[in-house]
Amino acid sequence: MNLSEKLANYIINTNYDDLPEDVVEFTKLCMLDYFGSAIAGSKKEPIQKIDELVREMGGKSQASLITGGRSSVYQSALLNGASSHIVEQDDIHKESIIHAATVVIPAALAVAEWKNLSGKDLINAVVVGYEVSYRIGEAVSSSHYYYWHNTATCGTFGSAAAVAKLLELSKEQIVHTLGNAGTQAAGLWEFIEDGAMSKQLHPGKAAMNGLISALLAEKDFTSAQKILEGKRGFFEAMSEGYNVSKITDNLGDEYKILENSFKIHASCRHTHHSIDLMIELANERDIKLEDIDRIMVKTYQVAINITDNKKPVTQYESKFSLQFCTALALLKGQGNLEIFNENTLWDEDVRKLMSRVDVIADEEIDARYPSKWGAIVEVYLKTGETIRKETDYPKGDPENAVSKHELLQKFRRLGKTWSESDRERLSTMVLNLEQLGTVRNLLSLSKVT
Amino acid sequence: MNLSEKLANYIINTNYDDLPEDVVEFTKLCMLDYFGSAIAGSKKEPIQKIDELVREMGGKSQASLITGGRSSVYQSALLNGASSHIVEQDDIHKESIIHAATVVIPAALAVAEWKNLSGKDLINAVVVGYEVSYRIGEAVSSSHYYYWHNTATCGTFGSAAAVAKLLELSKEQIVHTLGNAGTQAAGLWEFIEDGAMSKQLHPGKAAMNGLISALLAEKDFTSAQKILEGKRGFFEAMSEGYNVSKITDNLGDEYKILENSFKIHASCRHTHHSIDLMIELANERDIKLEDIDRIMVKTYQVAINITDNKKPVTQYESKFSLQFCTALALLKGQGNLEIFNENTLWDEDVRKLMSRVDVIADEEIDARYPSKWGAIVEVYLKTGETIRKETDYPKGDPENAVSKHELLQKFRRLGKTWSESDRERLSTMVLNLEQLGTVRNLLSLSKVT
Repeated sequence: MNLSEKLANYIINTNYDDLPEDVVEFTKLCMLDYFGSAIAGSKKEPIQKIDELVREMGGKSQASLITGGRSSVYQSALLNGASSHIVEQDDIHKESIIHAATVVIPAALAVAEWKNLSGKDLINAVVVGYEVSYRIGEAVSSSHYYYWHNTATCGTFGSAAAVAKLLELSKEQIVHTLGNAGTQAAGLWEFIEDGAMSKQLHPGKAAMNGLISALLAEKDFTSAQKILEGKRGFFEAMSEGYNVSKITDNLGDEYKILENSFKIHASCRHTHHSIDLMIELANERDIKLEDIDRIMVKTYQVAINITDNKKPVTQYESKFSLQFCTALALLKGQGNLEIFNENTLWDEDVRKLMSRVDVIADEEIDARYPSKWGAIVEVYLKTGETIRKETDYPKGDPENAVSKHELLQKFRRLGKTWSESDRERLSTMVLNLEQLGTVRNLLSLSKVT
Repeated sequence: MNLSEKLANYIINTNYDDLPEDVVEFTKLCMLDYFGSAIAGSKKEPIQKIDELVREMGGKSQASLITGGRSSVYQSALLNGASSHIVEQDDIHKESIIHAATVVIPAALAVAEWKNLSGKDLINAVVVGYEVSYRIGEAVSSSHYYYWHNTATCGTFGSAAAVAKLLELSKEQIVHTLGNAGTQAAGLWEFIEDGAMSKQLHPGKAAMNGLISALLAEKDFTSAQKILEGKRGFFEAMSEGYNVSKITDNLGDEYKILENSFKIHASCRHTHHSIDLMIELANERDIKLEDIDRIMVKTYQVAINITDNKKPVTQYESKFSLQFCTALALLKGQGNLEIFNENTLWDEDVRKLMSRVDVIADEEIDARYPSKWGAIVEVYLKTGETIRKETDYPKGDPENAVSKHELLQKFRRLGKTWSESDRERLSTMVLNLEQLGTVRNLLSLSKVT
């Protein structure tokens, strides 16, 4: 059996009634977390532009838009996917380096709404979509990740898998779904050099493309049988090395969604270790700018590749600057959405401190990545004292978990553009999702202000 | 200036009034040739499935569908792009190995129709789209081509460029158009192993994705500035080596659309050299199956990679089998659309002869590729006689050109599902395109039967 067939069997055989209770509970938290990010993103400029495109093109009234109103399922997936990947608070999986929610959930939600499916159906599809995304991401990590925004590339398979489950496709059709997902997989990291809006286009298009693959497969539109391992397939074309066992080991016997990490700070995950340590330090001692000679952040190479930036000029870039985030967290004692703003971006003290922050790759930390996204921060005081802090697990990792209460608080903070009653209504529905006979009203009745 | 800026300047500075007359005349032939393939493809199963998807999703009535009726511009581009890449008769550029028509023309047509633009506008946009596709394709050929269906990947830039021209985008907006085109570029050759329908999805999605890029850029949606040459950009991620001068040399001083080749035979271009030679032989001598001991086809490596297949089981696969095409052409003396059918696919004589055809890469021919798509065919007769034929330029290359009359005949043959009056009306309009004040009625009034 080829890999697509193995994944197809897994998708067919995964049923809601067999899901352990902790998986159901955790999946609902992932969905709540998705909605917080999606609502927070919906007012941002890139999302407003995609919203304009979606309304310009038009489409049947099949699924809700996070910006209000409805459109075709694939336009809903496009917009709602883009919207939850902008405030840098969406979930992340360490081993595959994938944000699955922003691709899998909008696609699954659109189709579940369109087909009038139940909360249980939606939960099950999300579990399946995460599993497939994460496994493919792990198989190609980390050479793939250097060039490719794998939330988008691997996420396309996850969107496709989730929708294939909801549409109850046959094994053959699921193989075609995966094949056409893989051949549409795209998204280059080059946009990061300019902090460009492509970042939001990627997960939106991944959600949409995965959905298109499943809708076409439902009509028996065919694809490559071996899109993953074939000689001109995804693995060979888009990675330098890959590990097939990551796709197959324990497939169906474990639930990778449980490995999901939640983001409490509103910046790139690769900055969270240092933010955690600096907040901890700020809480322990009153350290002022003038006390500090310099700061050294030692971490894994990928974090350096993505976040070594001493001169962020936009809020967006600042969230991808390890130097900025480190300085901000120490001086402000926070890393949440509100603390990243135009004032703090140009705050003189933050700018002065960040100029004294050096970031380097550390061989030992790098060897533990991506199982552990660790950092050591050394703060050299002018007195000669050195404060050294270290973490292997940023807050929100399964090993350093956040509580349901903390996630609800995060959701309320991110969802503040909605009225309190709409917010509470949505969170209550999501946290009791398995009891909903239809997900049709999940978003469509919410008032968008 | 980075490459995207150079291309943006070229796009802005290319105006219809400066186009040489031969470029205008040739571009109209490219468009006529596009419509023939698109009409012939529109009844095929994969296109009917995409048509079903497009109607299922719905969209505003902005642009014509080759299957009849109208939809949003990007759904029109998706369907009309897919439709002209199925009967294996769409045009091809040797140096870049790109079929530009099937991606560039549907995107440009949809937008020109939507915005009620003129025939001159459309011609100019098509010239620009071809130029950009071909140059990017040449820059990454041929390492890119091993994994990537570059009609789709490089074509995405061409679609984007053509639409950017029609929308009169600014230099900055065009840079963003190209950036978001590049980061959506996708399409793996793996589908060829199974002769799958992904082949049609690729150019359709490329047309659609390029269009999305330009529509978003019109709203100042941003992208990478250096999508081509950046360290995590298109060149580095998707090719082993690349040649930047192919983008910039003589840019604006020449018209690469004039290098376009037309396909007279209804199979993969990499089989045409041998088909030409076998038709020539069949016309010269009456050679029967029983006269032939074996046939040796020597050609360039890429042709072998794509078309070495002794066991085609579908018509589609047979068009990608050099062995099949060689045998068919010698026994039937033809290579047109009609001769590829279910009867000839399983014709006993063709099957017997193809089992005696060997195909190998020839070092000297390979060294001349892709400037020359050549082959030597040696036919070993049972009498001991060897007939040797050689070509550097398959029929339809600029060096072995087809006439306007031949292209009109091809169009009429491919467009036969339309009534004669509709066909004649369309061809007359296309061949006088520069006189049309609006392209709105080009397809929309045609009767689709």
